Amino acid sequence: MFSKKASLKVLSIATAASIAIGSFAGLNTSAEKADKLKENNREIKNVIFLIGDGMGPAYTTAYRYLKDDPSTPKMEATGFDPYLVGMQKTNPEDPEENITDSAAAGTSMSAGIKTYNGAIAVDNDKSKVKTVLEQAKENGKATGLVATSQVNHATPAAFGSHNEDRHNYNEIADDYFDLKVGGEHQIDVILGGGTKYFDREDRDLTKEFQEDGYSYVTNKEELVNDDNEQVLGLFAKKGLPKMIDRTKEIPSLEEMTNSALERLNKDKDGFFLMVEGSQIDWAGHGNDVVGAMSEMKDFEKAFNTAIEFAKKDKHTLVVATADHSTGGLSIGRDGPYKFNPQAINDVKRTPEFMASEIEEGGEVKEVLNKYTEFEITEEEVQQVEKAKEKLSEDKYALTDAIAEVFNVRARAGWTTGGHTGVDVQVFAYGPGKEMFTGLTDNTDQAKSIFNILEKGKSTKEKNK
Amino acid sequence: MFSKKASLKVLSIATAASIAIGSFAGLNTSAEKADKLKENNREIKNVIFLIGDGMGPAYTTAYRYLKDDPSTPKMEATGFDPYLVGMQKTNPEDPEENITDSAAAGTSMSAGIKTYNGAIAVDNDKSKVKTVLEQAKENGKATGLVATSQVNHATPAAFGSHNEDRHNYNEIADDYFDLKVGGEHQIDVILGGGTKYFDREDRDLTKEFQEDGYSYVTNKEELVNDDNEQVLGLFAKKGLPKMIDRTKEIPSLEEMTNSALERLNKDKDGFFLMVEGSQIDWAGHGNDVVGAMSEMKDFEKAFNTAIEFAKKDKHTLVVATADHSTGGLSIGRDGPYKFNPQAINDVKRTPEFMASEIEEGGEVKEVLNKYTEFEITEEEVQQVEKAKEKLSEDKYALTDAIAEVFNVRARAGWTTGGHTGVDVQVFAYGPGKEMFTGLTDNTDQAKSIFNILEKGKSTKEKNK
Repeated sequence: MFSKKASLKVLSIATAASIAIGSFAGLNTSAEKADKLKENNREIKNVIFLIGDGMGPAYTTAYRYLKDDPSTPKMEATGFDPYLVGMQKTNPEDPEENITDSAAAGTSMSAGIKTYNGAIAVDNDKSKVKTVLEQAKENGKATGLVATSQVNHATPAAFGSHNEDRHNYNEIADDYFDLKVGGEHQIDVILGGGTKYFDREDRDLTKEFQEDGYSYVTNKEELVNDDNEQVLGLFAKKGLPKMIDRTKEIPSLEEMTNSALERLNKDKDGFFLMVEGSQIDWAGHGNDVVGAMSEMKDFEKAFNTAIEFAKKDKHTLVVATADHSTGGLSIGRDGPYKFNPQAINDVKRTPEFMASEIEEGGEVKEVLNKYTEFEITEEEVQQVEKAKEKLSEDKYALTDAIAEVFNVRARAGWTTGGHTGVDVQVFAYGPGKEMFTGLTDNTDQAKSIFNILEKGKSTKEKNK
Repeated sequence: MFSKKASLKVLSIATAASIAIGSFAGLNTSAEKADKLKENNREIKNVIFLIGDGMGPAYTTAYRYLKDDPSTPKMEATGFDPYLVGMQKTNPEDPEENITDSAAAGTSMSAGIKTYNGAIAVDNDKSKVKTVLEQAKENGKATGLVATSQVNHATPAAFGSHNEDRHNYNEIADDYFDLKVGGEHQIDVILGGGTKYFDREDRDLTKEFQEDGYSYVTNKEELVNDDNEQVLGLFAKKGLPKMIDRTKEIPSLEEMTNSALERLNKDKDGFFLMVEGSQIDWAGHGNDVVGAMSEMKDFEKAFNTAIEFAKKDKHTLVVATADHSTGGLSIGRDGPYKFNPQAINDVKRTPEFMASEIEEGGEVKEVLNKYTEFEITEEEVQQVEKAKEKLSEDKYALTDAIAEVFNVRARAGWTTGGHTGVDVQVFAYGPGKEMFTGLTDNTDQAKSIFNILEKGKSTKEKNK
């Protein structure tokens, strides 16, 4: 039935298979899956873990509608589509809330435990829990955190620090410098926003990092021209502008990811890199479909970069998922069976950006028409003008009103300014991807990575 | 590395694996997957295809929240959870609408083509397209359609009839009797609602079916006490009452599924059975979380029944999915990170049921308190009283107002009375399940089943 060579090939696939089959084959726990993985002869040297913050199922599907070329009968695929392997549950273990925030979900994915909303790599009793980034560093690997929020925001923080409250931004930034593994800083590459928290009156972490041999870069040119294995790159006071609002001085998530990969890949022991598309969530909180899709594009490009790296490298596992979904986004609203992605593609700046220009004296009609490829109606102008009058009571009134113009045109629905509890997708590529198939719990992501790192450690010791 | 016996076992799993790996292993088309499947030695004799109409990702997750036992730390699994293998795209090929209806999606899953909204197993040019049910009958298998809507509603209709418009209910019912394969009626088991369409002034199909040897049953007792291989069972004028509103004369979806399986399983050539949880969608259209979860429970029980059958039989493939999501349901609304499933579990009848009692003279407060395990507030009573006054303008006003009381308590959000475009989950169990993994298109479901039937036919011919 099989030639000898074919049989061998099939046998190596077989391992993957028996894992892929999941509960059907009785392989339910991460430990069992890891045992099976040990039979696999493809060593996993690097792990790239990408998180689209707030990127629930409606976001990835809406983004596919945006990528559709109406002149072809088929709907074009997104970068994520070929790599869907399953979904994950996101519920936290919080005394008050049963829909997760980014801190609890981040901790589940970084440390393999359920905890309370707001917790940064601490358990319910506030004791610190080891993260996969820390384990990777213990194993001698290079490590990195890349985000489009301030880089000490909840999600990256859950991988690189420990704090009982996600809002202790200064303490979290301090951790990024102060926490050490075997005398070395535990994070080699730190890229995102947040000068406000790193360069402070009481402490200048940018200087401290440089004194310890890190490069410090603050714009795209500096990032690209630097090749130090250790780098702190901060490109905004807090979060970066959203992709469609960025000036050319600010790197994209793709460029930061590329730069991180080039640096981390110099470590012969491999690396762990966490990349976050942070502001998909922020746009979701603002019920802003234009901003959300801007950040989906930024995140997709970073994901594609990770996949390309892994395809060449062959020893890199790529996992992409979300921590939760935000805003209750729906494709379609108020009745009709129609979603109009063109109304999103035709908008060139976020509502936030346009609101700023109006607040600085711009005419509503002029500003809106300047940044959209359709003609704004008089009714839409009136709605936004009305909101402008409410700015003294509600500083988001103008942004919200502009966002709603595009939501209505696109037929994007929303139900909340917060998060929702829906399961989120898991995408994976490379050796070990079978550990992430089917329905998993968010804690399984960390458990699987710990198992991979454990296996890597024993292989390394065996080879000594 | 492997004992001989183990190797053999692994080799048989290997086939599954190389399919499961999907695009990674380069097996992109259904045909390629089917080729691989031919190497698999587990014959697929029966296919049970279950459709939770409107059951998008928020529905299955919300239902898990409902099943949670708050006294245990873990969230309990639903019947679906262990069987998640992927998701499917649902977009239709319609000149006006890019969010699917049940007819177009049903046709994609039954016939493997994209078509316009409203199409019942016809292509965009209105030409008839062969369905998997028809192919199964051609192969000599027994066939069945089970639904909680009228059984000639869009989804089952797309498997057992052909019509340019889903609303031609009488013509569709006629098809169920008139369409024949090799001189035999093409559907052996027909269970659901719809006496209105089968027993008409112009034609009495219930009589015609009986004349051709079918049993005709109209309540649970008759259904259970009859063991004819061919049966028409109609348990309501149109759709069945929702699960929590049903009297004991009306069978559940689980009971109908069980009865169908017992009958169909008598055919030595195997069977194809489509089971629809029809009214998850109807509750979604009504933005009624209580009704939606009632129908999820009904559907889960039918799914469990199918899984149990397949586990014993070993030659049965079970696939469960949705045709689309309805209503833009979200777990959480209006800000807080909280969903309150207890407020759903505590309601004992649908808003529709309570509205009827009120319309028939019941006091709002009394009726609501009679069917809920919490105390209705004065404010809630006032809201419903107000809606009652609008009944002359809007016949759904009362039902909607009652539904909203429970939506607010449960914190369930909605964005539309129509459908949404979000990808939906795919669950599968049994031989061939690997063909349904990853991200698929809704047309792939039919293509895979056609491939299975093709393979079955050639095996049968070989064995002659």
